[in-house]
Amino acid sequence: MSRRAEVVFSPALFPYRRLKENTIIVISDILRATTSICAAFNHGVGAIIPVETLEEARVYKDKGYIVAGERIEHSFEFADFGNSAYDFMNDDIIGKEVVHSTTNGTVAITTAKEGGGDEVLIGSFTNLKVLTDYILEKNHDVIVLCSGWNNQFCLEDSVYAGALLDVLTTGFTIRDDAAIACIELWYRAKDDLKGFMEKASHLHRLRKYNMGEVFDLTFTLNTMPVIPRLEGDRLVDIFK
Amino acid sequence: MSRRAEVVFSPALFPYRRLKENTIIVISDILRATTSICAAFNHGVGAIIPVETLEEARVYKDKGYIVAGERIEHSFEFADFGNSAYDFMNDDIIGKEVVHSTTNGTVAITTAKEGGGDEVLIGSFTNLKVLTDYILEKNHDVIVLCSGWNNQFCLEDSVYAGALLDVLTTGFTIRDDAAIACIELWYRAKDDLKGFMEKASHLHRLRKYNMGEVFDLTFTLNTMPVIPRLEGDRLVDIFK
Repeated sequence: MSRRAEVVFSPALFPYRRLKENTIIVISDILRATTSICAAFNHGVGAIIPVETLEEARVYKDKGYIVAGERIEHSFEFADFGNSAYDFMNDDIIGKEVVHSTTNGTVAITTAKEGGGDEVLIGSFTNLKVLTDYILEKNHDVIVLCSGWNNQFCLEDSVYAGALLDVLTTGFTIRDDAAIACIELWYRAKDDLKGFMEKASHLHRLRKYNMGEVFDLTFTLNTMPVIPRLEGDRLVDIFK
Repeated sequence: MSRRAEVVFSPALFPYRRLKENTIIVISDILRATTSICAAFNHGVGAIIPVETLEEARVYKDKGYIVAGERIEHSFEFADFGNSAYDFMNDDIIGKEVVHSTTNGTVAITTAKEGGGDEVLIGSFTNLKVLTDYILEKNHDVIVLCSGWNNQFCLEDSVYAGALLDVLTTGFTIRDDAAIACIELWYRAKDDLKGFMEKASHLHRLRKYNMGEVFDLTFTLNTMPVIPRLEGDRLVDIFK
């Protein structure tokens, strides 16, 4: 039987997904968490520990861990740095375990973990090719779980899902409406990806909070040959 | 201030909507409930009473009401007829109050009613122009609430939302990502709407259950100059 692919636009819709067994779940939260996580591994971080609450982050902080992240686009007061991909490109993280908590991305990772995917992988435009190569070698169905913004649909994550699924044509049957819509959005976007993404409402929010700096990096393909995968309670690069 | 528009892809996402006051909510469930409801009013039904449970429908049936609807694409045993738009084009309904219960559409109507929209209107391609003309005359924000399929994203409802919003450019500022995505999907679809909709997974399901007959009717624009509006517990045509 052909493999299937499905896109879930928000953690709130994850309970309604069709694919429940033998799945690879790819987390998409590209303007904030997932591109930053890829950047961290590309810069040599040892592991990322995603935590959902600030209380958990505080416990790690008190134990001496580096803590990164944001709540509603601002870093929280005890964080060592924020959630921009550039924040993670610093040599202090090399070989270290870094604790990471974000408004939406961490929730998506936790949702996927509890939802029982066989593998939970981190996706962004920056690791598109290595990730799709890896998925094509496997024999699992694929769910792209978009973090959304407070559970609302996010354009940038969905266009990314379309880019990913557009590569996965060989051996996949795509009947899921959300997946079809994402691929159509990708077709609308791909000839001028950055121009198209200027439309994203979330980008307006990011600019408002001076996070527009990550825009070019986020929408440039295949600059980071890493695949962060959830193993237990932490993310590690499968190539390490 | 400019008016705003937002699309909600599923009743499960309705609690996360941004627009909460001074809203017109348009329900989109075009392959099943909403085109059928428009067809009923176009054929002269007096009112439609949407009910969520079969128990409620049974109570009305026992009182002598005509009962229509479906559960998972089949009519239920005590229904007088099903949920195809053609089912509603019968003279028995003229001037009558018809009770209507469907898998997803009725849930969306109930969700909108409880969510406190100033007006809850029924949208389909068949009443696109009269509905957009009406909305443009008002001074409300607009939410398009797609019924989804068991709370999952549906392509046909979202393309319809895009067609609707594409008309509402005058006086509206569209910043919502879901709304932007729907308009982009509409641009992909509009030159060959029926060809595009062949891709919809839901259509495959409908054909499986012999409901493909409503396809042409559903995707033909402006054949039914009606605007069903929720008034109390029933839908009535605002032009009557």
